[in-house]
Amino acid sequence: MHSDSDWLAAAARLGLRGRPLSRPNPSVGAIIVKHGKVVGRGHTRAGGRPHAEKIALDDAGEDAKGAALYTSLEPCNHESERGPACSDIIARSGISRMVFAVTDPDPRTAGSGAEKLRRAGIKVSQIDCAQASASLAGYLTQKARGRPHVTLKLATSLDGFVALPSGESQWITGDQARAHVHSRRAQADAILVGGGTWRADKPRLDVRLAGLEERSPQRILLTRGIAPDGVKIINRPEQIAALDDVLYLYVEGGGQTAASFLSADLVDRIELYRAPIIMGAGQSSVADIGLEKLSAAHGRWQLAEQRMLGSDTYEVYERVQPNQGTTTGNGE
Amino acid sequence: MHSDSDWLAAAARLGLRGRPLSRPNPSVGAIIVKHGKVVGRGHTRAGGRPHAEKIALDDAGEDAKGAALYTSLEPCNHESERGPACSDIIARSGISRMVFAVTDPDPRTAGSGAEKLRRAGIKVSQIDCAQASASLAGYLTQKARGRPHVTLKLATSLDGFVALPSGESQWITGDQARAHVHSRRAQADAILVGGGTWRADKPRLDVRLAGLEERSPQRILLTRGIAPDGVKIINRPEQIAALDDVLYLYVEGGGQTAASFLSADLVDRIELYRAPIIMGAGQSSVADIGLEKLSAAHGRWQLAEQRMLGSDTYEVYERVQPNQGTTTGNGE
Ligand SMILES: NC(=O)c1ccc[n+]([C@@H]2O[C@H](COP(=O)([O-])OP(=O)(O)OC[C@H]3O[C@@H](n4cnc5c(N)ncnc54)[C@H](OP(=O)(O)O)[C@@H]3O)[C@@H](O)[C@H]2O)c1
Ligand SMILES: NC(=O)c1ccc[n+]([C@@H]2O[C@H](COP(=O)([O-])OP(=O)(O)OC[C@H]3O[C@@H](n4cnc5c(N)ncnc54)[C@H](OP(=O)(O)O)[C@@H]3O)[C@@H](O)[C@H]2O)c1
Repeated sequence: MHSDSDWLAAAARLGLRGRPLSRPNPSVGAIIVKHGKVVGRGHTRAGGRPHAEKIALDDAGEDAKGAALYTSLEPCNHESERGPACSDIIARSGISRMVFAVTDPDPRTAGSGAEKLRRAGIKVSQIDCAQASASLAGYLTQKARGRPHVTLKLATSLDGFVALPSGESQWITGDQARAHVHSRRAQADAILVGGGTWRADKPRLDVRLAGLEERSPQRILLTRGIAPDGVKIINRPEQIAALDDVLYLYVEGGGQTAASFLSADLVDRIELYRAPIIMGAGQSSVADIGLEKLSAAHGRWQLAEQRMLGSDTYEVYERVQPNQGTTTGNGE
Repeated sequence: MHSDSDWLAAAARLGLRGRPLSRPNPSVGAIIVKHGKVVGRGHTRAGGRPHAEKIALDDAGEDAKGAALYTSLEPCNHESERGPACSDIIARSGISRMVFAVTDPDPRTAGSGAEKLRRAGIKVSQIDCAQASASLAGYLTQKARGRPHVTLKLATSLDGFVALPSGESQWITGDQARAHVHSRRAQADAILVGGGTWRADKPRLDVRLAGLEERSPQRILLTRGIAPDGVKIINRPEQIAALDDVLYLYVEGGGQTAASFLSADLVDRIELYRAPIIMGAGQSSVADIGLEKLSAAHGRWQLAEQRMLGSDTYEVYERVQPNQGTTTGNGE
């Protein structure tokens, strides 16, 4: 027997498969359950349509009648030229119960999707689910803060260096960690580096994993200078708010860029790879952020995930939000 | 049913209770087992006598007859003015079987203890046991390298700093991590800091844990200068070889001192406490060690233990020995 929370978590996991190609829409997951068995499933498709609920209902067919629908995000309540509102489709589907995790912050829905289904005689419940919020982090951050969800990647020695004084930085971490970075790039809509890294490393910033080459995200440079060919630039970290079609931004350094984003409080998640080596000197992972008191540094980050990648450690730290837990939990 | 290895590991754990007060002797653990039940146990007492085997045999009394003796270290084969050799006591005890983990490197024993027992008609086996080697790390390092076992403690931010540029370092890690440091001090025979830390922090270097205040180890300063009152000094890291009664040395920094010990390859174990904070600038945990190529940094350290202490992480890295695993495993 699975609980409603279990089914919601399963819907959230399914939703992750739509990331990042669902942009600019959230990658929602939907599951239809009848007599304790899954009879339909769906996640948002590339470009944002069809929506997860529509795909799951089509998948279930006649079985939808009398079944329960679980969805990570409240069904939308706005028609578009690309199709009717999910709330209308669900209302007509024969679904008898609908459970969702996150109320859609889009003002065109914002509770009205759930309300319409209630009025259509469907039993509707909202249940908080950390995995569901996590799976929608990009969309929720855009709606709440008007900017993408930002992950800062750091790959350091045990003593926090990312390059020797000579500039040598290949390699600190091992094969598994580097492959993992490529899989994380594949989950992002855009990758950003600073002008220093651009000039020093001429990074390709693509996804070099079999079958995922097409996933290579937009490449963005933080610079006070002008744009090299084929690369978009921003002049200040705050300009990430203006990037089109970016729900998830992956910031790969270097140290000054990391410091600029951290100082502006524009980092939601730190992904830290650490090799079991001591370097003793070199470039720090994060340049000066102007911290004056240690007390001001505490309470901002919380370990959300930790594991080994070969002989390296991989850790995820999430920004602690005032008066709540972390933004997105550890459901990714 | 427990295997011989299980009983040896239990003997090793018991031996740890003798640390560090057994100095200059190893803290050995001994267990006597009859019909699958423990009938006697002992560990080396303060000052090194009585030995674990003697205490375990006294504890077992008549039950020793026909029983098996498990001991982390080969029983000694040398009489001293403080008592007869354990091999003689065991030979007379009625013990029918003896299992030990580590052959005593002391040339006065070095296999002859086991041999004497074999000749006395006792069934003798040697079985490797990582926990036993770990529990004897100080003694084994002294015998193999002529110097104490050295643990380097580092307490850093996520980006590897131990103090702000202003020198502020109170506090980076939290209460639990700091109490843990005191428990680790209580396990050491001596604590060492560098002259810089001595002048900057005037550290008390004592054990501030209820009931363990008496455990406060010798205080040693690494300095090219002269000794402050009540403190022993050494002028070069290599002089740790001449410290009396020190099996376990706990090096608490600062960065230059850490670098001096690491450069001299005099660190067996790194205990790393990390607070979930980003500092961006400050004093590094380890000063320059003159590393010229990243490749030279790899393959030296292996993660042996990892856990949370409050919101901080605690990690143990052990020096990888050429052509074998780690010195001491993760049995501590
Ligand atoms: N191991 C790793 O994970 C890793 C990852 C990345 C980089 N690295 C290493 O890090 C080094 C480069 O680091 P870095 O700190 O010198 O350079 P960086 O952060 O890559 O680039 C610094 C530049 O970024 C731009 N920038 C930074 N903050 C800005 C702000 N607030 N507004 C506008 N522009 C801003 C400026 O570009 P302009 O000068 O163009 O105006 C600045 O000069 C390289 O050696 C690289 O190999 C290592
Ligand atoms: N967060 C932490 O875990 C932690 C722990 C410890 C210290 N700290 C901080 O670290 C700072 C001090 O660090 P530091 O690196 O400047 O100083 P340090 O390592 O404590 O002391 C440096 C001094 O140690 C002596 N020394 C070092 N290597 C030597 C060698 N090979 N031979 C002979 N003597 C040697 C010299 O002493 P003389 O100058 O006397 O000759 C040298 O000046 C303080 O601010 C302290 O608060 C933080």
